[in-house]
Formats: sequence, structure tokens, C-alpha cells
Amino acid sequence: MSRIVGFETFDVRFPTSRELDGSDAMNPDPDYSAAYLILRTDAEDGLSGHGFTFTIGRGNDVQVAAIEALREHVLGRDVEEVCADPGIVNRALIGDSQLRWLGPEKGVMHMAIGAVVNAIWDLAAKRAGVPLWKLLADADPRWLVSQVDFRYLTDALTPEEALEMLRRGKDGAAARETSLRAEGYPAYTTSPGWLGYSDEKLTRLAHEAVAAGFTQIKLKVGADLADDVRRCRAARAAVGPDVRMAIDANQRWNVGEAIEWVKALAEFDVYWIEEPTSPDDVLGHAAIRGAVAPVKVATGEHVQNRIIFKQLLQAEAIDFVQLDAARVGGVNENLAILLLAAKFGVPVCPHAGGVGLCELVQHLSMFDFVALSGSRTDRVVEYVDHLHEHFVTPTVVTGGAYQTPTTPGFSAEMFPATLEAYSFPDGSFWRADRGEV
Amino acid sequence: MSRIVGFETFDVRFPTSRELDGSDAMNPDPDYSAAYLILRTDAEDGLSGHGFTFTIGRGNDVQVAAIEALREHVLGRDVEEVCADPGIVNRALIGDSQLRWLGPEKGVMHMAIGAVVNAIWDLAAKRAGVPLWKLLADADPRWLVSQVDFRYLTDALTPEEALEMLRRGKDGAAARETSLRAEGYPAYTTSPGWLGYSDEKLTRLAHEAVAAGFTQIKLKVGADLADDVRRCRAARAAVGPDVRMAIDANQRWNVGEAIEWVKALAEFDVYWIEEPTSPDDVLGHAAIRGAVAPVKVATGEHVQNRIIFKQLLQAEAIDFVQLDAARVGGVNENLAILLLAAKFGVPVCPHAGGVGLCELVQHLSMFDFVALSGSRTDRVVEYVDHLHEHFVTPTVVTGGAYQTPTTPGFSAEMFPATLEAYSFPDGSFWRADRGEV
Repeated sequence: MSRIVGFETFDVRFPTSRELDGSDAMNPDPDYSAAYLILRTDAEDGLSGHGFTFTIGRGNDVQVAAIEALREHVLGRDVEEVCADPGIVNRALIGDSQLRWLGPEKGVMHMAIGAVVNAIWDLAAKRAGVPLWKLLADADPRWLVSQVDFRYLTDALTPEEALEMLRRGKDGAAARETSLRAEGYPAYTTSPGWLGYSDEKLTRLAHEAVAAGFTQIKLKVGADLADDVRRCRAARAAVGPDVRMAIDANQRWNVGEAIEWVKALAEFDVYWIEEPTSPDDVLGHAAIRGAVAPVKVATGEHVQNRIIFKQLLQAEAIDFVQLDAARVGGVNENLAILLLAAKFGVPVCPHAGGVGLCELVQHLSMFDFVALSGSRTDRVVEYVDHLHEHFVTPTVVTGGAYQTPTTPGFSAEMFPATLEAYSFPDGSFWRADRGEV
Repeated sequence: MSRIVGFETFDVRFPTSRELDGSDAMNPDPDYSAAYLILRTDAEDGLSGHGFTFTIGRGNDVQVAAIEALREHVLGRDVEEVCADPGIVNRALIGDSQLRWLGPEKGVMHMAIGAVVNAIWDLAAKRAGVPLWKLLADADPRWLVSQVDFRYLTDALTPEEALEMLRRGKDGAAARETSLRAEGYPAYTTSPGWLGYSDEKLTRLAHEAVAAGFTQIKLKVGADLADDVRRCRAARAAVGPDVRMAIDANQRWNVGEAIEWVKALAEFDVYWIEEPTSPDDVLGHAAIRGAVAPVKVATGEHVQNRIIFKQLLQAEAIDFVQLDAARVGGVNENLAILLLAAKFGVPVCPHAGGVGLCELVQHLSMFDFVALSGSRTDRVVEYVDHLHEHFVTPTVVTGGAYQTPTTPGFSAEMFPATLEAYSFPDGSFWRADRGEV
């Protein structure tokens, strides 16, 4: 029997604010960061489990402290047991009643649980010798249902309904897997649209996006309406009438403001408005959606857990579920969110970007296509071309599509040299940056 | 000019789990704890500002780390400036875009903001020489409105409406203050009803509660229906027909379960069901409220921020707003919540207990009575008689009512000896507990 014997955390930060990469109306100067975890075992297979929470700089140390608070729940566990049933760890962490007080199931403590749970899944997929999407797609529907915490969900989704959907998902799965391996999964790009970029850079990058095969781009909006009108006009002119153009306000507006602002930009054939207001405001999203149609409404990157997603779907408040791989409680909770979206017939278009989010989230959408929703129609995964070089098996996007990962695991693993150099504040990059050579 | 020159944090934990004080269906063994902050100044008045987050044990260190992450926002600030306008600090903390990613406005990071903001208010009230409730009740309505962050609220409450309510609150305020000082503010007690207590202890404590003048008690429920039926029967027999009996499930149930369980206990003339399900589930609470009437629905101790409270009110999901003084972003956000409750005409019955929550929350209800809602009808503040001995100006409850505090400040200050003894893990209590004398 082998056990988990190592629980190593890292406060990894990249100085992205210097280029205004990732700048938007609420996040003017993010330093993309990861509170990163490696689980080591005493098995002699050389495999380790990697997981992380994405943050944007300050407070990454608090996030690391939260992951550290989970150490005793994980160390010493039987590797085979937890890899055969990651739900064991998920339930133990969610169920720690003292830690639960710090959420419950939201914020720093919940994201820490997500990092640990995802590291277990990474290890499980590596030990199984398959990429995570394949492990999930091949799994017995009853086992998948056993991985989901249905607490607070049964008024919208029962275990029996989930099982039935997953059983139906087996029909045609082999053909979809073949198609997925050949064609990949559609991506859209946010790279042209950061708020800190000049119109010239926006136009150039929008042209490049179309040339690279993307059929949807996204622009950050919400700081200044006149600027947004000018930028939307420039972007629409650059991409032409046939490319979808989404906009993203990053929670900048109140409900009334959102409605007015989106209506003022609708003339540029806006596809969706993303995060028009607080991610907590289910009823606000419903009001906005009712008022801005045919512009669609999307949210999710800051939605704290399955309970808010449930309500966004019950209230018919959103057109797209933008789940995030590192915001909620890990793969187990994202299975719940994928099942909810399938039940309500709402397409999942995951949030990605940051550091490592593209690497993770591709697995969830690919599983969804092969074995749950069975569809790629109107489904796209966000793509941003930052920081992939730090990953052992980086995302590959070509022809506007995520290419299907074939390496075992959850694609979560950063290079040791990256962990060393960008560890804050004493990694070699940061020491050199301070002139301490 | 004086400045804030000290920012001292303490991880304070009390071993309450040993007596099953505070035990309920979701929290079987809480160790009441505080992530505690002292702000010191270089003014020569000897005054310091005290604030804290209440937790139930494990993870209190993570909460302290989150408070520490706010240190640089506070140190060096002009004391007179921030005491004249605590909203400055509130806005600076909420507005830190990198830290905001860790919420936004929820969980560990948001509670840390609450601790810091409340410490500023404690200092402001001490410097003004008045208890906090009096500082708020005497304040200019325009100034109070300036202390509120209306972001994400304006579809339910505008600054103009808030100003109008606060202006109306001035009518008769002097007479209400006189009445408050004479009679105090109604309390109810949870002390008889912890889930870990025997029926005998429950009955004895219920008798004592009535004898002490309480007109409402509360029982924890939700672990086992047969037990709950027996305990509710015993409690009702003990208190007689005229004392209100509330029950509290501490989020134990799904929506359907909650409805069935409450209906099964309704025969004991249950006054309210508290936390029937997830605090995030606005629509779930609305469904439960619709199904269990005339039993009323209450929630709030785990409601993360003003945005969820807004929706609970918009959806007519609750009969009572149970705000918590140390869960949201401090006094400023609680002003928003009090204003929302007043706008929707829903009574505020704050959550208290734990450690120090009674001390804090009494000020908010007393301000609400004197200068906003103008009413004590159907309004009660929770009271639990634990751990008050650690506070310099403890809550005084006699005749079933909170006696009106007269000491300057927010009643948040613990004795230095308590901070020393119960600091975890190296305070003298904990060292002695481990046999390290």
C-alpha cells in the first residue's frame, strides 16, 4: 500500500501587471498568481498530484495558508483508495465543520479545497495513464454520480436524473471521442480585448485572431462608455460581420447601469455580455437578461459554488454557464455544475486564461462533449495565450480549437524551474527583480 | 496629527467543544475562536481600536492571515481622518482589486475586512466618547448615507431612499433613546437548545429562561426527526403556550427535506425556522417560506454580504433578517443591510452568541430602533451566555433584555489576560492544557 507522504505548497506570482495583460474594468493591474500544491506519494511510480488556485497577486499568501490548513486531511491517506474515489477527499474537506464556518463553500477556504481536490484528480488520472477528460468520459455513470455532492441541489437535480443523463451520454460517445481527437474543441480568444491595450493593438490582435481561425473574440468593457463604443466599433470593423464578438464588464455595473450600457453597445452585434454585475446577484442577472435580449448573458468565473449556479439556471438568468476549474471545490463540484447545465439545457462555455486555467478547463468541456451534453454547438472555451510556457503539458490551440490532450493527468503541472523562479518573494526572478543577484 | 502605528493580530481560541456548548446539526464540536485585531495609534489618549472575526476553531489561523494581508492598507493612516469617515477604509479594502479576486466580498477575505473596519468604528466611537449605537443614532443622515456602498444595491435601494428613511428616523428619536436607556432591547435565548444537551438539561434551562424573563427561546434541530419531536415537545411543555419557540437547522436540509421536517414540528407552535438550507439559496428559502407558513423563515448568520440579503428581500424569502456583526464587511455593510431591511419592512433579529457577537450586535439593533426602523416590535437579539467574562465591557442581559451600553466604543475589547492565555497554540491556557507548565 502506498500513502500520500508529501504536501508541498508554493506562492507563485508572475509580474503580468507590467504589460497590462489581463487588465479590465475591475482588475486594472493583475499579477497572475497561483497558490500551488504538490502531493507526493511513497509509491515508486514517480507520480505526483498537482493542483492550484488562481489569484491575481496580493493575498496569494492567504490562499496558500488556506491550502496548508487542509494538510492533515490529506497526509497519510491511502493513494489507491483516494484515486479510486476522490469523492472521499472532497467530502472530508467540505465536511470539516470548523473550516466550513469560514465559507461555507465559498471564498478562500473553498478555493483551497478545490486545489487539493484537483491535485487528487491529477494524480488519479496520471496513475490511470489517461488524461482527465478520458478518465471521466470512460467512467461508469454510477461512479460519476457518487462523486457529486447533491446537498442543496435536489430541488433542481436528483441523483436519479443525473444517472439517467450520464447513461444517455454513453450513446455515441465513441464516435464523439474520435471526432474530438481529430478536431479538438472550439476556442474563443480574449487576447485582443484587454482594457489597457491601445485601439491599434486591439485592431491588430483582432485581425490576427481571425487569421488564426477563431470565430469568436471578446472585449473588456465597462470603464468608459465612449471608449467602449469606439473599441467595439474598431473590433467589429476588424473582424467583419461573421465573427462573434462578446463583451465582458467584470462585474462593474449595477443592474440598471448594465441594461443601459449593453443597449448602447448592442448596435455592434454583441453576442454576449459577461459578468454585467455581481456574480452573487441571481435576480439581477435575470433582470438584465430580460432587458438586453437578443444580447445573451453569461457569467460564472466568480460564481462561488454549485448553489449559485443552480439558482442562475432556475431563474433563467443566464444563457451560458462559465464554470471555472479553480474557483469552486474542484472536479467533483464541477461535475455537479456540468450536470445542472445539462439538465437545464444551457451550454457551458468555461472561463479560462489567468495562469493554468486553460490547461485545466479543457478537460471538463471535453468530458462534457463526449459523455454528457454530447454537443459542441454554441460551446466555446476561453483562450488567452499567457503563461502556458510554464506548464509541462501546455494547452495547444490551433485553428481556433483546443487540441485534445493525450498526456495522462489534469495538465496542471508546472515546471520545477518555474516554481523556483517565481516563488514569492524569494524565488530567483523576484530576487533578481529587487536587484539581489 | 496622529497616525495608526500598530496593527496587532491574535489567534484566540476557547475550548468550548469540551462541554458541547454551541453544538448543532452542522457544527457538532465548535471551539469558539476569534481572529482578533488591535489598532494602536500614536495619539496620547491611550485609546485603541478592537475588532475581530468569529470562527469555530480550525482555520482561525487562515483568518488571522487574511487580516494581516490588510495591514498595509491601515498602518500610517491619519486617525482623525479615518475616525471621521470610516468609509475611507471600507472603500480602500473592498476596492483592492487583487484581494477582491479572493471573494469578491465573501468568505475569509471579506470577514477580514469586517474585522478591520469594525476596529476603526470601535476607535471612532471611543474617541467620540460614546457607545457606537449612540454615534450612529446621532449622526447626520447624509453622513450615514456616505458610509454605505450602494454598488449592486440600487435596483432595490437608492441613496435617495436611504436618506429619506434616515431623515424620517429622526422623528421621535429622542423619546426612543430615553425608552431604550430605561428598558433596553428585547433578547431571546439559545442557551437551552444546543443539540448536545440532554432532555433534562434542556427542560431545566428552558424553565430558567422563562424565569429570567425571556419571551422567546430557540432549539437546535435537524439531526434526527424523532429526537426533534421529543425535544420540541419537552421545550414547549417547559415554557408553556405563551413563550415563542424558534428552531434552527443550521443549513442541514435540502429544500424538500426542510419543508417536510418543519411541517412535522409545526404542531409545537414553532415561531420561526432558522437556516433551513444553504444561506446562498435565495430561491430555496423562498420556496420553503411559501410552503411552511405560518411558521416564519429566518436566516442571515452565514449570509455573505448585502447582495444576498438584497435578493432574500426582493424574493420575499425571509421574515427576519438575522444580520451578523462579524460576517460581512463591518459596520458599513451592516448599515446597508439595516437600510435594506427597513426599505422592505422586514424586522432585523441579529445573530449573536459565539464569542463577542452579542457585544457587537446590540449596537446595531439599538441604532436601528432609535434612528431607522423606530420599532422594537417582533425584533429580538439573540443571546447566549458564553464567554462574556473575557470582555472589558460585557453585554448585560437582565429581565430578557439587553441593557443599553453606555461605555464608549463598540464593546469589542477583550482583556489583555484573555488574549495572552487563549492565544493558540502558545498562550498559557493552551500550554497548560498540553501539560507544559
